[in-house]
Amino acid sequence: MLHFVNDYSEGACEEILRRLMETNLQPESGYGYDTFTASAKEKIRRACGTPEAGVYFLVGGTQTNKVVIDSLLAPYEGVLCAASGHIALHEAGAIEHSGHKVLPLAHKNGKISAEQVKDYVDAFFADPTYPHMVHPGMVYISHPTEYGTLYTREELAALSEVCRACKLPLYLDGARLGYALASPESDLSLRDIAVLTDAFYIGGTKVGALMGEAVVFPKAEPKGFFTRVKQNGALLAKGRLTGLQFDTLFTDDLYYRLGENGVKTARRLREIFLDKGYKFYIDSPTNQTFVILENAKMQALSEKVRFDYWEKYDETHTVVRFCTSFATRMESVEALAALI
Amino acid sequence: MLHFVNDYSEGACEEILRRLMETNLQPESGYGYDTFTASAKEKIRRACGTPEAGVYFLVGGTQTNKVVIDSLLAPYEGVLCAASGHIALHEAGAIEHSGHKVLPLAHKNGKISAEQVKDYVDAFFADPTYPHMVHPGMVYISHPTEYGTLYTREELAALSEVCRACKLPLYLDGARLGYALASPESDLSLRDIAVLTDAFYIGGTKVGALMGEAVVFPKAEPKGFFTRVKQNGALLAKGRLTGLQFDTLFTDDLYYRLGENGVKTARRLREIFLDKGYKFYIDSPTNQTFVILENAKMQALSEKVRFDYWEKYDETHTVVRFCTSFATRMESVEALAALI
Amino acid sequence: MLHFVNDYSEGACEEILRRLMETNLQPESGYGYDTFTASAKEKIRRACGTPEAGVYFLVGGTQTNKVVIDSLLAPYEGVLCAASGHIALHEAGAIEHSGHKVLPLAHKNGKISAEQVKDYVDAFFADPTYPHMVHPGMVYISHPTEYGTLYTREELAALSEVCRACKLPLYLDGARLGYALASPESDLSLRDIAVLTDAFYIGGTKVGALMGEAVVFPKAEPKGFFTRVKQNGALLAKGRLTGLQFDTLFTDDLYYRLGENGVKTARRLREIFLDKGYKFYIDSPTNQTFVILENAKMQALSEKVRFDYWEKYDETHTVVRFCTSFATRMESVEALAALI
Amino acid sequence: MLHFVNDYSEGACEEILRRLMETNLQPESGYGYDTFTASAKEKIRRACGTPEAGVYFLVGGTQTNKVVIDSLLAPYEGVLCAASGHIALHEAGAIEHSGHKVLPLAHKNGKISAEQVKDYVDAFFADPTYPHMVHPGMVYISHPTEYGTLYTREELAALSEVCRACKLPLYLDGARLGYALASPESDLSLRDIAVLTDAFYIGGTKVGALMGEAVVFPKAEPKGFFTRVKQNGALLAKGRLTGLQFDTLFTDDLYYRLGENGVKTARRLREIFLDKGYKFYIDSPTNQTFVILENAKMQALSEKVRFDYWEKYDETHTVVRFCTSFATRMESVEALAALI
Repeated sequence: MLHFVNDYSEGACEEILRRLMETNLQPESGYGYDTFTASAKEKIRRACGTPEAGVYFLVGGTQTNKVVIDSLLAPYEGVLCAASGHIALHEAGAIEHSGHKVLPLAHKNGKISAEQVKDYVDAFFADPTYPHMVHPGMVYISHPTEYGTLYTREELAALSEVCRACKLPLYLDGARLGYALASPESDLSLRDIAVLTDAFYIGGTKVGALMGEAVVFPKAEPKGFFTRVKQNGALLAKGRLTGLQFDTLFTDDLYYRLGENGVKTARRLREIFLDKGYKFYIDSPTNQTFVILENAKMQALSEKVRFDYWEKYDETHTVVRFCTSFATRMESVEALAALI
Repeated sequence: MLHFVNDYSEGACEEILRRLMETNLQPESGYGYDTFTASAKEKIRRACGTPEAGVYFLVGGTQTNKVVIDSLLAPYEGVLCAASGHIALHEAGAIEHSGHKVLPLAHKNGKISAEQVKDYVDAFFADPTYPHMVHPGMVYISHPTEYGTLYTREELAALSEVCRACKLPLYLDGARLGYALASPESDLSLRDIAVLTDAFYIGGTKVGALMGEAVVFPKAEPKGFFTRVKQNGALLAKGRLTGLQFDTLFTDDLYYRLGENGVKTARRLREIFLDKGYKFYIDSPTNQTFVILENAKMQALSEKVRFDYWEKYDETHTVVRFCTSFATRMESVEALAALI
Repeated sequence: MLHFVNDYSEGACEEILRRLMETNLQPESGYGYDTFTASAKEKIRRACGTPEAGVYFLVGGTQTNKVVIDSLLAPYEGVLCAASGHIALHEAGAIEHSGHKVLPLAHKNGKISAEQVKDYVDAFFADPTYPHMVHPGMVYISHPTEYGTLYTREELAALSEVCRACKLPLYLDGARLGYALASPESDLSLRDIAVLTDAFYIGGTKVGALMGEAVVFPKAEPKGFFTRVKQNGALLAKGRLTGLQFDTLFTDDLYYRLGENGVKTARRLREIFLDKGYKFYIDSPTNQTFVILENAKMQALSEKVRFDYWEKYDETHTVVRFCTSFATRMESVEALAALI
Repeated sequence: MLHFVNDYSEGACEEILRRLMETNLQPESGYGYDTFTASAKEKIRRACGTPEAGVYFLVGGTQTNKVVIDSLLAPYEGVLCAASGHIALHEAGAIEHSGHKVLPLAHKNGKISAEQVKDYVDAFFADPTYPHMVHPGMVYISHPTEYGTLYTREELAALSEVCRACKLPLYLDGARLGYALASPESDLSLRDIAVLTDAFYIGGTKVGALMGEAVVFPKAEPKGFFTRVKQNGALLAKGRLTGLQFDTLFTDDLYYRLGENGVKTARRLREIFLDKGYKFYIDSPTNQTFVILENAKMQALSEKVRFDYWEKYDETHTVVRFCTSFATRMESVEALAALI
């Protein structure tokens, strides 16, 4: 069986496991006051070019979105996002569970634009009954998006400018950030993101860690954020576990190299599909590939390959997703080529 | 430096790390649908004698308490517990954050009694204004308690009986359950706990895992529990990580053996203190030892040993806590002996 | 100035004020245990043909929706409703504030259909990832809708049937119910509504009361509802105030007669507009009338009449709302005729 | 039957009812944009000596406490109060329902002191584990307290000073404020309270209104307070109803005169009890009187007088509460004299 179903099927990159072994019995303080966490925070601050940034390590993506968004919003504010955004669809109402409305905007390949945000905010405050409605309080984007697409530097700068003008914090969900940073089609660096956003997270779970996401507040962190993390049940007693992983990921550019593996194998995958005459549902430059398959082909393939059902395309075709990751070997991609 | 400051200073037991290495690149389904999780659930059900039990793996103690308690209560209900209970004091208001009042009862060495629960409930419903107040909706106990003390079989059976009579689910926080099960002074087995409670968790973080707690609903699980876990940001994408750890802990009695190490080293520690004429603040039969130290002695000792400040005893004495764990070596205990 | 801006511009019907005066110093128990409340509950139960119904008096519409919806949903469930529903748009996120996602369906003149509900539920549970998403937990409709339109008996029966099949409680927001019951175009009685829904409220604020809404649970009331009301800050100390008002409204068919006044004056209003060649934005058979006005006409009219801006129609026309109420006098309508 | 059971048994003072009648059909804008509300706000600002104060009219005490406290706290903060405080005991967990822990301090006759607050805050932040606990975020006091007792100017000034030093907003629950202002034993005016607190409410429900409480933020109001009120279901469509009542209460010192009636009748009541040799449970200078009655006497009396059971005193005695109000007539007090 070949595995392209998602990017969290395997454990961690071997560098992480090796260091876990080496440091296992070294006693460390709890709750993120360990030496690994301190070092990881420093390395991330350096990589972002923000020596004063607040950096926190949480466990998973939904948890991170929930805690960060709740920390950036007043209770009567909601979060603007693409209608396809993870928080709008696949987090079991975690944002609403913390009291906030998700305010979806029509998306284009998973993305929203500065104009959309500006138009929403202008129209909202032009309506004299606005105090009776949920105020737009911040903007959430994902990069790469749920469709594997990327914001350009220009698009993010425009969003950033509108957000500042509207006093809306801009938050970037980087669950797969490693695959964006490593994409040759991206012109956005970590430093750019740190300049242009108010909060973002560097995804570990989908880019080589056992688990863990690094939240960065490049300008200023929300008051009492540590206690908020604890109150949400998101504080690890053995903070060393996330600290050590991010310390490893940000040593010798490992995080970028893991991202590169996902991107390279995905590009080769797309070459193969293209060569064989397949069409893509969306042009996706990172580690996710959305292919339109004939239903019979899909059926046959599913006996030898695990991939993800995405949606019905027409009566005889289906969109399916092939996902590569930090762990995908080029041999597996070539083996897939033989099957399609 | 000798380390007795808590039971989460080290990483994991080596059996867990070894298996993590061995299985690292084996592809598995996400969100707890992996083979390790399935196996771990089966082993825990067997160990509890409850083939139909609901078993879930969460990440940490506060998270587990928050999600379980919210799932067992109606919004207008609160949770009865010892005033010294972890949920009452050290979880940053996580329970209140989910909308529920914590209803503290006076504790005796960290424990509450069946009589206290019955008296509270009787008095509550005898007051004609009770609909204006938070209803008692469940009972929370910790075992071992925050003072390292244990419920006897008789005490737990009495609590269980009262709770059933009052229709209050009984929930046991087993953050350090391994040290209870391994204590020669305990007459309560996992099976007893499964019979006598409605929910409990088997702590991994403090008993040899990198992180992770196994929630068990021996009778019936709350409706929609999986979605509640997700909504609270408590669902791991790589569920294999907790599954594998508990599968390992429940293989060949490892969980009990790890608990035994914590208990044995703590017993030796107490012998040493007793021999040297020290007094204990509380009689604690598990892995925590509360010693009354002269302040000067405490000061001197703190240069060579890390232990936990507990509370002021009198003007010249302080209560400090020495904690052993699955990882404490007997040599460290003997080395401590030389210093006191 | 003529007043057609909404149906809550005046105080109460004179019968209510008169009884407030007459009974003012009569001592009564608090919190809804007064004699007026007991009598009002009985009269409403009788009017609904449900001698066992739970009846509660709350203060306003948003409050009522919030408390009732939260009481009918589990935390991981959301509420299906028309995208134009009051809870979706104009309640400042009150539903999300209590932790629940609002799940909007495309509306047709403010209404949703049984098919839409069935399709949503079928599609939801057919998706294998549904446990990661907010479960549909109930259905909210308004009757009359926000556009003044009405469900037919057949439409409501179909919704009711689907809801029961899907185990979704059906809740009807009757903020303007009086104007529905009195509309000659409606074939739905209070008894029908009590048979076909699981919860509804009979609006007082917009139909002749100073304030107050009567919540009816025709089959079974949510556990602990009184305490939930209190916990939400929705319990009046002087429950006599809402009790007396509903007792009055349900004496001698007053509630229907007040509704009739709103409907009759609105019908006359529509005749006048039709006669003068105006077009309606929507065909609305209750107390709201949506007229398409030339912008110049609108401007001129606004100097002598207060009405409500609804939305832009095209570059030269605007949709405006004229609202009648229990208090609108036919002379005012005729006076308006002279101006258009 | 004589009525001394509470201060919300009757309707409203006649001045309010009269004006309701007179203005009933005058069309007014909704949601607090009516002319009565504007006038009432001005009068209250003047009475408080705070021309810039934020003033809002809510419906009831629990609702007001919930919305104001949630608006003044961050999610990880709790509210310090007397253990006997209304929010701690009799609001069905409304504060916890909005996510905040109530942090009770030992009370003395219903009051807490500046020293207690300072000690709590000092001890809290001296504990290095404080980020794991609920931060003290504000102070709640009631004046009069639940025991009818009063803070002196000196006591309130001391509390105010400590609160400012600790950056804790000080909030005063004035459900019965009229009876405090009118007590000859009080040296605190409305202006003093406006100077010394950050938020307070002037109770209408228990001092002559049908319902309604006036929230005052003498210095600065919380951001988005109007929307928070709406989101909590606490916004009246017919805001005229509360506006008119407070406009009336703050015309010609009516609010003080109503308070005076409650205090005068209570003083006479205490004279009578004293004369007959009864003992008081607590020295209460406002409209509540706590008398220790022999059980047999209590039984006999209860056939002719309604009063409130407070608590058991000893095997043969009970503490009961006699409450006067804006509506109590001196003849009723004298009639009671004949019975005791």
